[in-house]
Amino acid sequence: MSNYHPLTFEEAISFARSIPGHFPADAKLDCQEIGDGNLNLVFHITDQNGGKSIIIKQALPYAKVVGESWPLSLDRARIEREALQLQYGLCPGLAPEVYAFDDELAVTVMEDLSDHTIMRKGLIEGAAYPLFAGHIGEFLARTLFFTSDLAMNPQHKKEHVKKFINPDLCKITEDLIFEDPYKLSDNNNYPEYLEDEAQALREDGALHLEVALLREAFLTRTEALLHGDLHTGSIFVTAESTKVIDPEFAYYGPMGFDVGAIIANLLLNYASRPGWTKDADERRETEERLLRMVSDVWTEFETRFRKLWNEEAKDPMAGAPGYQDLYVTKVLRDTAGFAGCKMIRRIVGLSHVADIDTIEDQRLREEAQCKALAIGKQLVKNHRGVNTGDDILRLVKQAVQPFEGAVR
Amino acid sequence: MSNYHPLTFEEAISFARSIPGHFPADAKLDCQEIGDGNLNLVFHITDQNGGKSIIIKQALPYAKVVGESWPLSLDRARIEREALQLQYGLCPGLAPEVYAFDDELAVTVMEDLSDHTIMRKGLIEGAAYPLFAGHIGEFLARTLFFTSDLAMNPQHKKEHVKKFINPDLCKITEDLIFEDPYKLSDNNNYPEYLEDEAQALREDGALHLEVALLREAFLTRTEALLHGDLHTGSIFVTAESTKVIDPEFAYYGPMGFDVGAIIANLLLNYASRPGWTKDADERRETEERLLRMVSDVWTEFETRFRKLWNEEAKDPMAGAPGYQDLYVTKVLRDTAGFAGCKMIRRIVGLSHVADIDTIEDQRLREEAQCKALAIGKQLVKNHRGVNTGDDILRLVKQAVQPFEGAVR
Repeated sequence: MSNYHPLTFEEAISFARSIPGHFPADAKLDCQEIGDGNLNLVFHITDQNGGKSIIIKQALPYAKVVGESWPLSLDRARIEREALQLQYGLCPGLAPEVYAFDDELAVTVMEDLSDHTIMRKGLIEGAAYPLFAGHIGEFLARTLFFTSDLAMNPQHKKEHVKKFINPDLCKITEDLIFEDPYKLSDNNNYPEYLEDEAQALREDGALHLEVALLREAFLTRTEALLHGDLHTGSIFVTAESTKVIDPEFAYYGPMGFDVGAIIANLLLNYASRPGWTKDADERRETEERLLRMVSDVWTEFETRFRKLWNEEAKDPMAGAPGYQDLYVTKVLRDTAGFAGCKMIRRIVGLSHVADIDTIEDQRLREEAQCKALAIGKQLVKNHRGVNTGDDILRLVKQAVQPFEGAVR
Repeated sequence: MSNYHPLTFEEAISFARSIPGHFPADAKLDCQEIGDGNLNLVFHITDQNGGKSIIIKQALPYAKVVGESWPLSLDRARIEREALQLQYGLCPGLAPEVYAFDDELAVTVMEDLSDHTIMRKGLIEGAAYPLFAGHIGEFLARTLFFTSDLAMNPQHKKEHVKKFINPDLCKITEDLIFEDPYKLSDNNNYPEYLEDEAQALREDGALHLEVALLREAFLTRTEALLHGDLHTGSIFVTAESTKVIDPEFAYYGPMGFDVGAIIANLLLNYASRPGWTKDADERRETEERLLRMVSDVWTEFETRFRKLWNEEAKDPMAGAPGYQDLYVTKVLRDTAGFAGCKMIRRIVGLSHVADIDTIEDQRLREEAQCKALAIGKQLVKNHRGVNTGDDILRLVKQAVQPFEGAVR
């Protein structure tokens, strides 16, 4: 990595020019840095003449969120780029195309998606996305199925496991999701008024047991190549299109981790609605739509996953009677558990979600935070008993029941 | 690997001489090839003057058992050597010491254990080994615990997972243990009179489901660095000493795979006793001793594993109430299931055990084969319901009950 240095705007433009067959020789290239993440530079390069544009993403050797003190391997740019190419190959409509890359500079050049909106922003604004569940169900089913031993030669899959060993980024997940919220930690971040809730998380032995089991699954189960950070801030949408971006946390892990991430972030938005939708009927309608999306995401995933299994499985034992059902139930239970963990950490952990944090009214923000924690705990504690997608909705409804009478 | 070639006796001797500080300058070295395995050359080098001796093990680039047509990566010599060093570091008395190695030649030089006996041979001859359960319980507990996320930094452990990705040798396990016995395969190898039994294995859907789950666990669960081939032919013993050798199948997998291998091979010997011990009382006594060993191996492992957990766990969630019990139960269930799979494959699969195959009387050999199959199936089909070590013995006794009245 000796030649590595963060690109200047001029260097980014000249890198863009060097990509064969992309910009014409007389292109008038403009460059802006649009990264709002913590780990990367993101250059948006536009041809002022022709309107063509690309994204150049460059990994930084540290996490900005904690200054330069959290060093991160630049190899994650290679991991992200290989994951993107693999996801694009499996789901061409659902991930950005990679045009070029330079592993030494930790740079990936890819499709510009600035005609899309970050899904989290769209959801906060109350947008509906009726095609989303089908799109993400397709993305999840294809990327998880085709990278697993169900569809891959197990020897080839082992080489994939090796290629996607991703210790630095996994450490972020392991610490922030599976450890910090359950102990006193400088990484935690919550307002004074949530201290009782945070203390309850630290003292709940039954909760710790379920978190320990989910953490163990994340640490030890190489089921499929995960996106690894599939929240609604990693998804670009329009009414017709869904594009999953930023797989730098890609890693072989349990399938339910990705499915759970989607569901957690829909439920975080669900918990936030009283902060955004004042009209009671409209709020009820939006909340019901979000719960339907949760249910649809699971169903669309499950239907496609089972179809792929029936039609494309290479695993010699895939036809064993009952195996598919047990496998799908395992993924569902993991989905519920990981969704719960991800909700909890977004309230008391280091990194939050705008859906909740940007609610201006403190009373409504606190209600949203407590509701998200209640759902999260309910899902984690009961994940091993979940048998159907409806069970997830039932757990959510049980968890929010005490909030139903809340004065707004 | 450009410099690789199988060593001649002269080269082996000169390699031995080159190891600093081992043999004196006037050593009169003799060399014999003593490999009875299928994958390696094993040179026994002895100083005719001083009596000092060493073993030089060199990997072959193919499996001898199927001619040169089954190519195997020479990198497995590196994997075996690193596993040996790691096991010796964790259990100095229970594995041979590595004196030197050459990765290019796929050579490892190690402690000579020719004062020990191969345990399988000793068991066939009716030897007792009262210290064995404690020794192997120690080996299992320490090697499995200290290479897991329970004791290792998870980032460091991921680098281990990467280093021990072992596709070629895992393929042998995956094919021969988890696939071939349950279908028509040229790799299977059984006498005509077992055709009905073999057919029953191919047609038993309930059995296939359990095998599918165990195969999935082997393919996807990176719990600990396994020996990977821990049968009684990979163990050297004396009355006082136990040395585990040949970890070339080392790989990150489910802990129960190693514990199950030991138990399977003790039970294969148990099933063979009528072929070896004519006196009824002596036979009964030997059988009871073998069942006690099975039970003791589990207990000695479990006791030590729990003690290590209580005293040495680094996992931040290790103290979650109930976690250790659930973890141990998982290992026990896997142990029962993998033990069953290993017994089945030794009867109908490619590679058999001398305990049973060398019984001269065909009627007694057939009884032993059917008994081993019955125990194997019973363990596999019921492994998910096992809760204590005694449950394993109960399943064994249920399985052998129909044979109790057999005329001998």
